[in-house]
Amino acid sequence: MNRAHLGPFLADAGLDALVAVSLENVLYSSNVPIMTQRMIPSRLAFVVWTPDDEATMIVCTIEEAQVRAESWITDIRGYVEFADSPMAALADVLREKGLAAGRIAIETAYLGHRYHAELAGLLPGATLLDGDEVFDAARLVKAPHELETLERAAITTERAIRHAFATAAIAETEVVVADRMAAELRRGGADGVAFTVLATGPNAHLVHPSPGQEKLDPGNVLRTDFGGHFGAPYAGYLSDLARTAVVGRATPGQRDTYARLFEVHTSLLEMLRPGVRACDVYEAARRGFEERGLAFRMPHVGHSIGLSIHEMPMLSPKTTAELRAGMVMAIEPITITSDGIFHVEDMIQITETGVRLLSPAHDWADLPVIG
Amino acid sequence: MNRAHLGPFLADAGLDALVAVSLENVLYSSNVPIMTQRMIPSRLAFVVWTPDDEATMIVCTIEEAQVRAESWITDIRGYVEFADSPMAALADVLREKGLAAGRIAIETAYLGHRYHAELAGLLPGATLLDGDEVFDAARLVKAPHELETLERAAITTERAIRHAFATAAIAETEVVVADRMAAELRRGGADGVAFTVLATGPNAHLVHPSPGQEKLDPGNVLRTDFGGHFGAPYAGYLSDLARTAVVGRATPGQRDTYARLFEVHTSLLEMLRPGVRACDVYEAARRGFEERGLAFRMPHVGHSIGLSIHEMPMLSPKTTAELRAGMVMAIEPITITSDGIFHVEDMIQITETGVRLLSPAHDWADLPVIG
Repeated sequence: MNRAHLGPFLADAGLDALVAVSLENVLYSSNVPIMTQRMIPSRLAFVVWTPDDEATMIVCTIEEAQVRAESWITDIRGYVEFADSPMAALADVLREKGLAAGRIAIETAYLGHRYHAELAGLLPGATLLDGDEVFDAARLVKAPHELETLERAAITTERAIRHAFATAAIAETEVVVADRMAAELRRGGADGVAFTVLATGPNAHLVHPSPGQEKLDPGNVLRTDFGGHFGAPYAGYLSDLARTAVVGRATPGQRDTYARLFEVHTSLLEMLRPGVRACDVYEAARRGFEERGLAFRMPHVGHSIGLSIHEMPMLSPKTTAELRAGMVMAIEPITITSDGIFHVEDMIQITETGVRLLSPAHDWADLPVIG
Repeated sequence: MNRAHLGPFLADAGLDALVAVSLENVLYSSNVPIMTQRMIPSRLAFVVWTPDDEATMIVCTIEEAQVRAESWITDIRGYVEFADSPMAALADVLREKGLAAGRIAIETAYLGHRYHAELAGLLPGATLLDGDEVFDAARLVKAPHELETLERAAITTERAIRHAFATAAIAETEVVVADRMAAELRRGGADGVAFTVLATGPNAHLVHPSPGQEKLDPGNVLRTDFGGHFGAPYAGYLSDLARTAVVGRATPGQRDTYARLFEVHTSLLEMLRPGVRACDVYEAARRGFEERGLAFRMPHVGHSIGLSIHEMPMLSPKTTAELRAGMVMAIEPITITSDGIFHVEDMIQITETGVRLLSPAHDWADLPVIG
């Protein structure tokens, strides 16, 4: 069983406690995906970390048996939903640990203001701090088991898209193509589909359209941006890949747009290595688009990926963080044309010297033609 | 296109503005399911309601074209992710509406404390209030199009479970049965599976186990608690039904437990009508279990359902809210035995005089036997 180690990160940040609240950070901390964290957000769950690298978990009694069966954490406390306040249960644990006047960091981007205010009222002597960045820092560089799962996710997802494009036929609908892609993803071992962007025709101009009843028509662009869950049907490590094709026969203009986009994509993959700043990758993309006459409108050109789709660092203009070996990222140049959006996205791992492709980007250098 | 009407609820609550932030309330307010609200929670979206029943929507520019295409709202503002602060964009809209010193309610159970603190800093003269309950009140009684969708959701889900139980064979695994159930749900018109609890053998003792590689073994209990999305692959109206069966041949003890549980279920369905308090339904269930010698440990015995799985009111001990005609609820007595959990759950609509069953509860009066 994989045991997380947050203790050293608390010490670095000068914290007495760090509290996980979101599904992703509770899963990262405890190794247990609690389905109801997604479906019933008021059923709060917490993992309280201390600098000695120990953890206490607090869950609704409904989930207690699952957590006891699946987590490496042995100190587990249950609260009775609707009878006990989960924030009071959390305050009790913090008091018991002697931290009523401690420096306590919690996920303030996730935890609703009303719950935070309740905790502040229960622990008036405590200093409540933002904890999101501590989890971001811990999750930045992936452990070997995370790298394995993310590589499996990338390979499986690329194969599912390849299969969907290879078998798609003119006059089929978006949903038929998307369903075949989803089935192939499941066959390949994914626990579920995380998201499916797929469109042709009018919706090919939107960034996040869902598949519908539009038919594959010769000359039209078909784009998909597709990801699965690996680890639990509603959580776990994620994939995120995008591919663009043309139905029937591509025009020289479509081939040229795609080729220019792919040149930028390749140039970004070649510049990634430890020490490169995230904002410099963004700037290189912006310049690459400009030099090739491609419209550039995206607020980012990629992101780290793991238990969340967008993890830190984002490849966005103000992110000065440097890339580090062991990060896993999705690189995704996008351009909008009168024919719709052109988008390629691959997953890579930053190595000591450059990148390792987790999805076979180079197989997609030529604009795919469907049907 | 369905247009929500929150204006009257603002007037009742003495509010100058009400701000939707969660996927569910943004969808309810705007009619647009924004996929990235689920996948990328930092990409905040807002709908600002005023007492004149008008609404302004604020979204990341990436989602702007979709919102303009799909929403009834015409006043739509875009912010550039990573360049602009979404909270500053919200504060600008509130100031523009002359509400810098207004009474502004926002979803404080959903909106992270750090965002709320930023808004408070940007609008020091405003009174920021809890808005969740205003949305709960608006969503309490379902509109005709919501009732139609929820009925379709209940019928489709019941058929999928019925199909899965009818076709399940001894020695098949949980995942095989669950996949067949999911496929039938999609064939029936669901946009996606929301959650799948399904277990036999050791996991039949957990409340929310995911299907795995355990095989259907004669004498074992098989339970599922299953729901789909209707309206969008990652959002929309939800179903939530549970069924329990025994593999091969049921013992007299299993039949008896199920029969007693079903008696309680029937008695709850019979007592539901406008004016009954939610806590009295809970108390009737507790008493019904006690009288029949069944273990009773659940913190609730049902809940309203709609765009969220658990909507207000919950059928829990402290909920004094009265049932009202037009509510849709899931009624779900659960008991834990040495053979595993027994659970039946049906969806109903409260009518002027009692209930209308949305799923055919009475077809399940006898313990189903599989294989």
